[in-house]
Amino acid sequence: MSFSTLSEFADLLAHAPAPDYSAREQAQSRNAQLTKPAGSLGRLEEIALWYAGWRGDARPRVAAPQAIIFAGNHGITAKGVSAFPPEVTVQMVANFEHGGAAINQLSRTAGASMSVHAIDLDRPTVDFTQGAAMDEADCVAALTVGWNAVDPTADLLVVGEMGIGNTTSAAAIANALYGGAAAAWVGRGTGVSDAGLKLKEDVVAAGVARHAGKDALGILAALGGRELAAMAGAIARARALRIPVILDGFICTAAAATLEHACAGALDHCIAGHQSDEAAHGRLLAALGKEPLVSLGLRLGEGSGAALVIPLIRAALECHSGMATFAEAGVAAG
Amino acid sequence: MSFSTLSEFADLLAHAPAPDYSAREQAQSRNAQLTKPAGSLGRLEEIALWYAGWRGDARPRVAAPQAIIFAGNHGITAKGVSAFPPEVTVQMVANFEHGGAAINQLSRTAGASMSVHAIDLDRPTVDFTQGAAMDEADCVAALTVGWNAVDPTADLLVVGEMGIGNTTSAAAIANALYGGAAAAWVGRGTGVSDAGLKLKEDVVAAGVARHAGKDALGILAALGGRELAAMAGAIARARALRIPVILDGFICTAAAATLEHACAGALDHCIAGHQSDEAAHGRLLAALGKEPLVSLGLRLGEGSGAALVIPLIRAALECHSGMATFAEAGVAAG
Repeated sequence: MSFSTLSEFADLLAHAPAPDYSAREQAQSRNAQLTKPAGSLGRLEEIALWYAGWRGDARPRVAAPQAIIFAGNHGITAKGVSAFPPEVTVQMVANFEHGGAAINQLSRTAGASMSVHAIDLDRPTVDFTQGAAMDEADCVAALTVGWNAVDPTADLLVVGEMGIGNTTSAAAIANALYGGAAAAWVGRGTGVSDAGLKLKEDVVAAGVARHAGKDALGILAALGGRELAAMAGAIARARALRIPVILDGFICTAAAATLEHACAGALDHCIAGHQSDEAAHGRLLAALGKEPLVSLGLRLGEGSGAALVIPLIRAALECHSGMATFAEAGVAAG
Repeated sequence: MSFSTLSEFADLLAHAPAPDYSAREQAQSRNAQLTKPAGSLGRLEEIALWYAGWRGDARPRVAAPQAIIFAGNHGITAKGVSAFPPEVTVQMVANFEHGGAAINQLSRTAGASMSVHAIDLDRPTVDFTQGAAMDEADCVAALTVGWNAVDPTADLLVVGEMGIGNTTSAAAIANALYGGAAAAWVGRGTGVSDAGLKLKEDVVAAGVARHAGKDALGILAALGGRELAAMAGAIARARALRIPVILDGFICTAAAATLEHACAGALDHCIAGHQSDEAAHGRLLAALGKEPLVSLGLRLGEGSGAALVIPLIRAALECHSGMATFAEAGVAAG
C-alpha cells in the first residue's frame, strides 16, 4: 500500500480493515468466566475486548508498544502565538535524542520503543493566515513519514509531537472541522498570557476564514503542520496493520480528527489516553465520542499522556488473558 | 514499636512521623528546572513532590512496591447481604495463592511483590447487629497482622482485601463516622439485587444504631472485619516507616478513614488510587479530601484499583528524577 496524493490517502482510509468480530466474541465469552463479579473490572474489560478485536486474538497481551514522536516548525510562530521561541523545537528534538525529555522516561518505564522524526525543521510551514501551511506534496510527504514510521511488529502505538506553535495549528483544525467561535478551541498551550490568548484567537479565526470550504484532508494541509500530518499518517498505517492506538492530547487528537472527518470510523482502533488540561481537548474528545482513560492535568504533548497509560492497557490485557476462570480456580460463580 | 490495646495503637498514630519538608523543597526546586513548560505534567508533578517528601529523597524512584491482601469472614453474611456465599472468601484466597486473580496479574505487571494473609477465616466476626464484630483483643490481633505484614524495605504500599460481606461492613463504618442516612453509604457490592440493597441498608442502620457513641477505633472493632483492621494496621505501619500508600476502593478507604478520625492527618502519606464504581466511594474520598487518580468503573476490591495505578506513580517519579534540566539539555526556558 502506498499513496502519492491526498485522494489516494483518502482511498486507503475508506478501505481500512475492520476488527475481528469473532476474536472479540471469544474474548467476551472468556471475560464472563473470569474469577471476578461480572463487570467488576469496569473499563479494563471494555479495553480488553476492544484490543482483542483489533489484534484478532481472544487472549492477547501487550508485548511491543511503540512511541513515535514527530517534530515540525510552524510559520505561524512569526505571529507570536507561543510562550516559547521556535528554536525550542530543534532543542527539544536533541533532548529527545539524548533521553532527557518526559516522553523518554515515560516510554522507558512503559517498556515502549521510542523514535523521533524531525521533519524539515529548517523549512517551517507557511503562516496559514497567508496561504496553505503545506501544499499537497508537502502534506503527502509528511503523511508518508508517519505511515513509514510505524513498526509492523508493534502491538500498541503512541504518536506524539513537538512543534512550537502547534496548539494554534490544532485549534485552527478543530475550529475548521467543528465550527463555532475560535475562542472555544483556543487555549494557553505551553503558557501564553491573556494578550497572547487573544492573539491566538484572532490568528485561528483568520486562518479558518481563509481556508473555508476545504475537505478534512485539505484542512489538515492548510492549517496543520508536518508533525500533525505525520501523526495522521501513522494512525492510518496502524489501522491498516490493525495496531491499536492511544491518542495523546489536543494536537494529536486534532490531527486524528481529520481522519475521522475524511472517513467515519477511521479512529475505531484508537482509544483516548487522557484528557489534557488544554481547554478545548475535552470538547474535541466529546465530538469524537472518545472518553479519556485518565484526566491528570497534563498539557505537555510529546505523546506523554498516551505513553503514561500504556501500563493501564497492558494491565487490562494481563487481567483478561492471565486470570483463572471460575472452573479453573474452583470458585463459586455467585 | 508495638501495641497491645487500641489506646496504645492510637498513641502510635499520634506520634507518627511527618514528611521531610527539606527533601520536598529540594524536589520542588528540581521540578522547576526540568525540560517542560511549568506545571505541564499536571498531577504527576504533585505526586513526585508528595513522594519525595515522604521518602526523604529529592530525586527518588519507585523500586520496590508491595501489595498485601488480607482476607476475613463476616458474621453479617448470615443476613444475606452478599450476592456470593461466604465460602467464596476461602476459595478466592486459594485463587490468590495460585496466581489466578486480578490482583495477581496487576501486581506482576506493576512489578510489585504480593502476599496474602487469610485471617481466621474459620472464625467469622460477630454479626454486628447482635454485638461488636470484634472485641478489642480480636481487633488488636488483626491490626497487628497488618502492622507486621509491611516489608520495611518496600517503597510503595498497596493494601487490599477479600471478604464476602465486607461492603456492608465498610458502609456501616462510613455511616458511623460521617452520619447521614444508611442508604447514602450502601451500594451493590459484588452485585446484589434491589431487595438485597434494601436489606443492606437496614442491616447497616441497625449496626450503626447499636454501636452509636464509639470512637473511631471502637467503630473499626464494632463494625469492621479482620481484613479491614489489618489494612488499617498496615497503613499505620507504612506511615511509621514513611512508605507512601495507595488507597484502593470503598472497603480499603473505609478502613483507612478510621485512622484519620482517630488522628487527623494519619492519611497524609496516602493517595487515592481510584474511584470505585461502588456508589459511596466518591463520597468517602471527598470527605477525606482525597482526589482519585483514575475513575475506571472498577468495583472488585483485592487492591486491584490501587495496584493498577502503581505504574502512574512510578512514571511520575521517573519523569521527576530522570528528566534533563533546561541547563543540562541546552533548551531555552521560555
